Amino acid sequence: MNAHTDNFTVRTRGQGTTEITEEVARIVRESGIRTGLCTVFIQHTSASLIIYENADPTARTDLHEYFSRLVPEDEDYFVHTAEGPDDMPSHIRMVLTRTSESIPISAARLTLGTWQGIFLFEHRRAPHTRTIVVSVVGE
Amino acid sequence: MNAHTDNFTVRTRGQGTTEITEEVARIVRESGIRTGLCTVFIQHTSASLIIYENADPTARTDLHEYFSRLVPEDEDYFVHTAEGPDDMPSHIRMVLTRTSESIPISAARLTLGTWQGIFLFEHRRAPHTRTIVVSVVGE
Amino acid sequence: MNAHTDNFTVRTRGQGTTEITEEVARIVRESGIRTGLCTVFIQHTSASLIIYENADPTARTDLHEYFSRLVPEDEDYFVHTAEGPDDMPSHIRMVLTRTSESIPISAARLTLGTWQGIFLFEHRRAPHTRTIVVSVVGE
Repeated sequence: MNAHTDNFTVRTRGQGTTEITEEVARIVRESGIRTGLCTVFIQHTSASLIIYENADPTARTDLHEYFSRLVPEDEDYFVHTAEGPDDMPSHIRMVLTRTSESIPISAARLTLGTWQGIFLFEHRRAPHTRTIVVSVVGE
Repeated sequence: MNAHTDNFTVRTRGQGTTEITEEVARIVRESGIRTGLCTVFIQHTSASLIIYENADPTARTDLHEYFSRLVPEDEDYFVHTAEGPDDMPSHIRMVLTRTSESIPISAARLTLGTWQGIFLFEHRRAPHTRTIVVSVVGE
Repeated sequence: MNAHTDNFTVRTRGQGTTEITEEVARIVRESGIRTGLCTVFIQHTSASLIIYENADPTARTDLHEYFSRLVPEDEDYFVHTAEGPDDMPSHIRMVLTRTSESIPISAARLTLGTWQGIFLFEHRRAPHTRTIVVSVVGE
């Protein structure tokens, strides 16, 4: 039984989703763990993680548009506005998605479904460098 | 210390929630693990998981209705429509709920609260066969 | 390799967020685990967990207001109303946030980012005693 914790960074290009499945799969392979659990964690409060369909990019376009409408920038009751109009919506969009995603490991591989990819969801308008921590536990 | 990964399938009857607590609890019992962590993972991007109140069915009826209004089918900006009007909303509803749920294990049992059950939340209108993967790690 | 499961209670003062990072960090320290995974789980269906910005309290004020508007109390289609007008919204707000949060452990510490704290999100109007279960696995 073993436990590994590793991390990597992703440079985002502003709002949108970036697939990180390969980076996570590499850490799982390097861990040598064949049966267990992989947990992906993002160390930020204005970006988040989702597991999402990775075949048709239009599924991601529509998702981005939905979130821009669900949590608009111009809510007149927002008080937390010192860091710009996209800051408070980014915190809420992060709460409505996930800070961590956990995926079982079987036969030394992530048990993702056929159409599933792991994505970083950047909520700020400006590019950011985001740190992702990956825990692998198992045997 | 041990790690087990198992899976099962659920046949859904279209949109709505199906309790899967017993299937998960059985895998935990069979693992022999007394202290640790159970993670339930769904291998799909148009169905999701929630831990929800399992006593009064009306709490689930109202939840279904809320989600049908929060993410309606007829958004005029949707581009990802090739698989039918219920496909894109199903991806968004999945993102707003969870792909995995993790529950600590103590005294060889899931530490669910009195009113908590684990539910599969089907977002497509047609029945589907959904695969659930369960990881159990601990000792 | 070890596994620990512990718990603690929090007395909430009605709707809002309460930081619980220190209570969780203490359980991680006491576990002696240096590399692994910490999972925080709430045993309730009308309160939830989030990892959120813990520097500026106005980020939490705006979050509370956003959720009170996203899931209002007076939806005329709600059937599950026997426990009061704040009960059904509390279940939905819980589904839209999280029942568990998982954080990798490295160098015997939670790998939280600079501005991240773990918060209990109480959705009922009345004060409640909430039980949090914490699982730590690793080595």
